[in-house]
Amino acid sequence: MNRQQLIKQIFDKKSFLCVGLDPDIKKIPPHLLHEEDPIFAFNKAIIDATAPYCVAYKPNLAFYECRGVEGLTSFEKTVSYLKAHYPNHFIIADAKRGDIGNTSAMYAKTFFEEYDVDALTVAPYMGEDSVTPFLEYEDKWVVVLALTSNKGSHDFQLTEDKNGEKLFEKVIKTSQSWGTDQNMMYVVGATQGNMFEAIRKVAPHHFLLVPGVGAQGGSLQDVCQYGMTKDCGLLVNSSRGIIYASQGEDFADAAAKSAMNLQQEMEKELERLSSRK
Amino acid sequence: MNRQQLIKQIFDKKSFLCVGLDPDIKKIPPHLLHEEDPIFAFNKAIIDATAPYCVAYKPNLAFYECRGVEGLTSFEKTVSYLKAHYPNHFIIADAKRGDIGNTSAMYAKTFFEEYDVDALTVAPYMGEDSVTPFLEYEDKWVVVLALTSNKGSHDFQLTEDKNGEKLFEKVIKTSQSWGTDQNMMYVVGATQGNMFEAIRKVAPHHFLLVPGVGAQGGSLQDVCQYGMTKDCGLLVNSSRGIIYASQGEDFADAAAKSAMNLQQEMEKELERLSSRK
Repeated sequence: MNRQQLIKQIFDKKSFLCVGLDPDIKKIPPHLLHEEDPIFAFNKAIIDATAPYCVAYKPNLAFYECRGVEGLTSFEKTVSYLKAHYPNHFIIADAKRGDIGNTSAMYAKTFFEEYDVDALTVAPYMGEDSVTPFLEYEDKWVVVLALTSNKGSHDFQLTEDKNGEKLFEKVIKTSQSWGTDQNMMYVVGATQGNMFEAIRKVAPHHFLLVPGVGAQGGSLQDVCQYGMTKDCGLLVNSSRGIIYASQGEDFADAAAKSAMNLQQEMEKELERLSSRK
Repeated sequence: MNRQQLIKQIFDKKSFLCVGLDPDIKKIPPHLLHEEDPIFAFNKAIIDATAPYCVAYKPNLAFYECRGVEGLTSFEKTVSYLKAHYPNHFIIADAKRGDIGNTSAMYAKTFFEEYDVDALTVAPYMGEDSVTPFLEYEDKWVVVLALTSNKGSHDFQLTEDKNGEKLFEKVIKTSQSWGTDQNMMYVVGATQGNMFEAIRKVAPHHFLLVPGVGAQGGSLQDVCQYGMTKDCGLLVNSSRGIIYASQGEDFADAAAKSAMNLQQEMEKELERLSSRK
């Protein structure tokens, strides 16, 4: 999916919601454990229930890999189901990969050819040749970790160099010589509300993938106030707040309701944006 | 495997060689393509041929993931084969993972419980809570990326803060408050020969996992001169130089010869170390 198509989806659906598909076998409703593939059954129900309210899905590979071959099969089935039934939803594989050039090329092949997802999260620590192999695919996206939503983000990402430039700023600036706003996004945690202004100074047009709303405590209003661009420029992710809204048999309805609530807030933010134009 | 056991293996076998199991279906000998699982058949032959000369194996997950469920099955079979037939070899899953705390905990469960490997490579960009879940397992190791062997390592890892401290030095120093030299190693590329002295100043006792000898051009002598400790303190990895020493039917013999050559060089380095004691 290219940038124009993504923006069209956002304004058509009045939503920039990304639903994180992070299914934990210990947390999914117990009645699903009788299914042949409980993880896929859970995802399928969540997807069917939330698709009207979101524009993207983000399965985090950790939650599939932890179940070995069985888990990877659930991941593959989930991606295939999305592509067959919801081809206009943007799929982000949250894998945080990154290795030396020839190895990153293998990962790129995996995610962009085998699974054919739209985007992959990538860790920037190893620099240019760890990221550029992912940028060689048309209409595919690299989502570079910039300022993450977790407590440990402060350990290195905020470290200032001699000129006062923080590491995450350097990552954003440097990586702009590798890709463009047509094939690169940045992860910026919603918990970093006051940093969005600084980020928009160094990346005024790039889409930002924003985790951390909900369970992690980030504010959608702050994110929009400081991070939104005229094209929206945001994909805001919620995982636990939606997929575990209920752990009973009504889990899909509860997920739909939780997704709808976020979509309605997002609709207001998009209206506010239109009135500003 | 704990530190004392690893050191014993190194001095018993007179080797600190780690063989990188990075099998690429396009590069393995063509006659293996008729096997039911060509990747596992290749790994098994390489392992049987090189086991006398090395103390560790390092499968890089990218080379398995690129083949989906089939590839992950090959990975699982490889680890099981090693544990059954070569239980004294140290197994490092080179996956370069790292995510927010609850997600890193899922990855830790995958690699340390499901696959039960000895060590996992981890990217430090996301900080403390992305690494510490891996440190909660007895006799398991986290191998933190510090100064990698690739060209892009210069993009961020060498960035100096206000006090002149480079990012990789900060990673090494900071992470020492999370774990110890009993459960944490660092990746330092052999291509960074002149940096080993600086690294030994901040991590005098930690084991270093050293890729980049061979195909990537690093020098074993430089690494030993500046990086070796009294306990050896090094695991030097070679992947392509060993596993693709020949692409003919003699590939296993050629791999053994290549591994033996490195082992003999390492034996000399260990003798030099003993004479210095």
